[in-house]
Amino acid sequence: MLVGFPLVFPTAMETPTLIALLHGPDQPGLVARVSGWIFARGGNILHADQHRDREAGIFFQRIEWVPTGSAGVAEREAGDFLAFAASLGMQAKVILSSRRARIAVFVSKADHCFHDLILRWKAGDFSGDIVAIAGNHTDLAEAARGYGVPFHHIPVTADTKPQAEARQLALLNDLGADLVVLARYMQVLSADLLEKIGRPVINIHHSFLPAFAGGKPYHQAHARGVKLIGATAHYATRDLDEGPIIHQDVAQVTHRHGVEDLVRKGRDLEKTVLAQAVRWHLEGRVLVYGNKTVVFD
Amino acid sequence: MLVGFPLVFPTAMETPTLIALLHGPDQPGLVARVSGWIFARGGNILHADQHRDREAGIFFQRIEWVPTGSAGVAEREAGDFLAFAASLGMQAKVILSSRRARIAVFVSKADHCFHDLILRWKAGDFSGDIVAIAGNHTDLAEAARGYGVPFHHIPVTADTKPQAEARQLALLNDLGADLVVLARYMQVLSADLLEKIGRPVINIHHSFLPAFAGGKPYHQAHARGVKLIGATAHYATRDLDEGPIIHQDVAQVTHRHGVEDLVRKGRDLEKTVLAQAVRWHLEGRVLVYGNKTVVFD
Amino acid sequence: MLVGFPLVFPTAMETPTLIALLHGPDQPGLVARVSGWIFARGGNILHADQHRDREAGIFFQRIEWVPTGSAGVAEREAGDFLAFAASLGMQAKVILSSRRARIAVFVSKADHCFHDLILRWKAGDFSGDIVAIAGNHTDLAEAARGYGVPFHHIPVTADTKPQAEARQLALLNDLGADLVVLARYMQVLSADLLEKIGRPVINIHHSFLPAFAGGKPYHQAHARGVKLIGATAHYATRDLDEGPIIHQDVAQVTHRHGVEDLVRKGRDLEKTVLAQAVRWHLEGRVLVYGNKTVVFD
Amino acid sequence: MLVGFPLVFPTAMETPTLIALLHGPDQPGLVARVSGWIFARGGNILHADQHRDREAGIFFQRIEWVPTGSAGVAEREAGDFLAFAASLGMQAKVILSSRRARIAVFVSKADHCFHDLILRWKAGDFSGDIVAIAGNHTDLAEAARGYGVPFHHIPVTADTKPQAEARQLALLNDLGADLVVLARYMQVLSADLLEKIGRPVINIHHSFLPAFAGGKPYHQAHARGVKLIGATAHYATRDLDEGPIIHQDVAQVTHRHGVEDLVRKGRDLEKTVLAQAVRWHLEGRVLVYGNKTVVFD
Repeated sequence: MLVGFPLVFPTAMETPTLIALLHGPDQPGLVARVSGWIFARGGNILHADQHRDREAGIFFQRIEWVPTGSAGVAEREAGDFLAFAASLGMQAKVILSSRRARIAVFVSKADHCFHDLILRWKAGDFSGDIVAIAGNHTDLAEAARGYGVPFHHIPVTADTKPQAEARQLALLNDLGADLVVLARYMQVLSADLLEKIGRPVINIHHSFLPAFAGGKPYHQAHARGVKLIGATAHYATRDLDEGPIIHQDVAQVTHRHGVEDLVRKGRDLEKTVLAQAVRWHLEGRVLVYGNKTVVFD
Repeated sequence: MLVGFPLVFPTAMETPTLIALLHGPDQPGLVARVSGWIFARGGNILHADQHRDREAGIFFQRIEWVPTGSAGVAEREAGDFLAFAASLGMQAKVILSSRRARIAVFVSKADHCFHDLILRWKAGDFSGDIVAIAGNHTDLAEAARGYGVPFHHIPVTADTKPQAEARQLALLNDLGADLVVLARYMQVLSADLLEKIGRPVINIHHSFLPAFAGGKPYHQAHARGVKLIGATAHYATRDLDEGPIIHQDVAQVTHRHGVEDLVRKGRDLEKTVLAQAVRWHLEGRVLVYGNKTVVFD
Repeated sequence: MLVGFPLVFPTAMETPTLIALLHGPDQPGLVARVSGWIFARGGNILHADQHRDREAGIFFQRIEWVPTGSAGVAEREAGDFLAFAASLGMQAKVILSSRRARIAVFVSKADHCFHDLILRWKAGDFSGDIVAIAGNHTDLAEAARGYGVPFHHIPVTADTKPQAEARQLALLNDLGADLVVLARYMQVLSADLLEKIGRPVINIHHSFLPAFAGGKPYHQAHARGVKLIGATAHYATRDLDEGPIIHQDVAQVTHRHGVEDLVRKGRDLEKTVLAQAVRWHLEGRVLVYGNKTVVFD
Repeated sequence: MLVGFPLVFPTAMETPTLIALLHGPDQPGLVARVSGWIFARGGNILHADQHRDREAGIFFQRIEWVPTGSAGVAEREAGDFLAFAASLGMQAKVILSSRRARIAVFVSKADHCFHDLILRWKAGDFSGDIVAIAGNHTDLAEAARGYGVPFHHIPVTADTKPQAEARQLALLNDLGADLVVLARYMQVLSADLLEKIGRPVINIHHSFLPAFAGGKPYHQAHARGVKLIGATAHYATRDLDEGPIIHQDVAQVTHRHGVEDLVRKGRDLEKTVLAQAVRWHLEGRVLVYGNKTVVFD
């Protein structure tokens, strides 16, 4: 495998396809050149979405096609496409639908996103596979095993955080994980660990960021008397709660909702927002640039 | 003007563009061929959206580009593109952003959609111009004139419907109307009139069709005890309330809402749903096939 | 237990309370009389919600209070209250929070509502307990047992339906079930069975009723080209899909969604709409009159 | 008029009613005592809503009733009720539906909330009357006069702010205004002016507060790459953008929306959120305590 970073590979339900995400300085003829390149090699374009940020002068594209020939051709074509994109001044990544992404899920004690992700995966909703659960507590160990998914207990304390992060990194490398999902994992990953992981990490924050960043957002929301609560799925970066936002949603609340009710209502938001973000990511629909995302939904 | 049917032309805020809506039997290479055709003539593609209905084997595309050369070139290129599309087995229409659509609004007594459409138009939200109001009652005549829009009173009774429809048709022809909007117009247009109009007619129905088709949908909704009310914008066809749906939205209601409350809440839905449908139509985002729409939003 | 029909009893997290649902012909002084009756006996009212249907002249009330004295007092007071309500010409039921409702869940093969209900119950969201799963297929038997909930296989065919329904009825009686939840159970309960059950049965229909009643609603929705799909939780009655609606919600869809996508998106709606309806029912928030509900949320 | 502060009076469509908003330390028997007081004087309770904040130990109530006797009785009963509420240790205000609130609307150049409020008022949606428009620019003067509403031009510059605020205050006093609505008024009212006004002031902020407080919230939202934009209606206090929130709503946005699109989409949110807040306020549904609101909807 040699097709760019980060490597994420949706499912091959039918014919294997290639999915390219491109962006770079806008210039005339990009749509025609990219589709012409694919057509000249006998590929058939299934989907193509473009976006232009006119202020910034940036061109964005997601394009999915069926290459001609055998499976080996697809891998070679992926590499060729990256070179072609570079010749256009574009940054690109290419995804092969024939290789499924490997997902590691980090958890603490809360179980709602954990169950939700696993059940959706088992229902066939994800173009990837949950290959392991890692928890800093053991509360979900038995449930994970009940689902047939390996559980790794990596406790974290203030004193042992460096060693714990070394274990987490080793685990991800052993697993060959393509994606890390923080499913209400209650520890902050250090900037150092995020850099070493070098793969996308999706987090769910239980507020409509940027409101109520930091700890106990439902308590903050209740204290402020807002009439909506929210959840935000974003890529984790070294700036806590400030990474590129993938998806957000909200629910109406009233004075009748105490903090516990916000927590309960918020669980539904957290589940659906995180699952949608993971799903889009796995299908190669999320393109990050600067601190923002383009989501080709 | 010779560029296909129906002729609708969004605004030219900046450089004039061409917008093509295509559909026809799916075949390999369509994306590349269409973009190649434009590129070969020096055009620059701004947006291109494709959709495939895999069950039906149909390809749909909306593509917007800046043609090279003077304004006259754009009109000629529009005609050439239609011939090109036909050579691919595609049905197409082409819109020139340099010509603004002319909109006739039909009203009765209710004024909320009437005010809403005019105020949005005056705010610059629409790629077209409201050129006349036609009412079967005179309730809105003064308000129309206050906005500086001509008002035409065409009363309709059971006995005089054929003559009234003849007057409506003559008015639309005189106006050179590209689009008719039924803004809570309380008369049914006959199949004969719709055919003679030969231009798109957008209607707002005050329910989430297909629920509560026909008359007094809020009364029907209240009697059934639903927990949501809705509004549906659709193209009017000879089958009442069964034309292709462009947009729908709903609002939560409770047992505390009587029929009058449903009517009041529904007004907000009707306004925003109708305005969104008109806006999308004017921007060439709505493609009709069979009894359904593809909305390239 | 002698406190009216149907008997449903929310959880006693803290002090045991009584919850009364009343309705009957409106008359002056009802609020004062009811609260006065409770106050005179030393009770403390926690919540009281009233609604008047002015057209029909009906008064509705949900009132929750802490009675004075020991647990035995609460049961006696419930009986006394029913007599008092009758003296006002009101129909009433009274719920004791100290007794948890017993819930039987009927399933077929689809597992999303099944998992969702059980996980919410285990998370403490429900004022009641799932005491058994009954399935006409065995697909969910192992999962049920994994959760520690008894699974009963009662196959149903056209020929054996009467015998199967007799087994279902016997099971519900053996369980002492207070509520039956049809969690995407794909068989119609006969009018005869519903009458014999004599307890509330909540069903989830996968459309915004009354649109797309009957079979395969997602296929119907796709064929009609609607822009919203919905789900409806309602009490099952002898008129299929026409019972009193408890809760409804919708989600936006586009031309890009095939039938399979509607099914997938609909699963989330079905889960949350059914769970909310069950939750409200268990908390004594749903009052049925005629073919409609008053939901004191 | 002698019935407490602030004086706001919904419409008398039918029989005149009294509406009381109460709050104070929780204690047993409050519901019974209040309804008993009304019943003993021959009043008939139409609606009664209670809420308890258990953490804070505060009881909240909105109660609406038809008093016995002539119109003069209602005013006297309002005064008596205030004394009664005080005897229970409650803060209260009482509203007479027979006197309509007088509303002053402050505007700058943006016209969408201005038109929306006036059209809703003319449609009969509000329990009050817009008696004047005050603008620091003259852009909306002609439109106001077209609606038959007096327009007052009070320009504001950094140098003349104190004098301008003195004129605003004098105008409100002359008008006998009960409510001030800031309909996208682009000047900050000084803490001194707010105190001297001594009447409720409702503002619309174009973000989901507390996110993007301060200036240019749509620009802030675009820069952060959020997937939702919002609007917040709140009472203006000396702490800018931090007053008690009455209502909030949001709309989904994508990368395809530039700042101008956010502004356009936001206009719809601002209109409906502000109108809903004004409507609730006028119907005596909003109770302020601390920096939060209880909305009896």
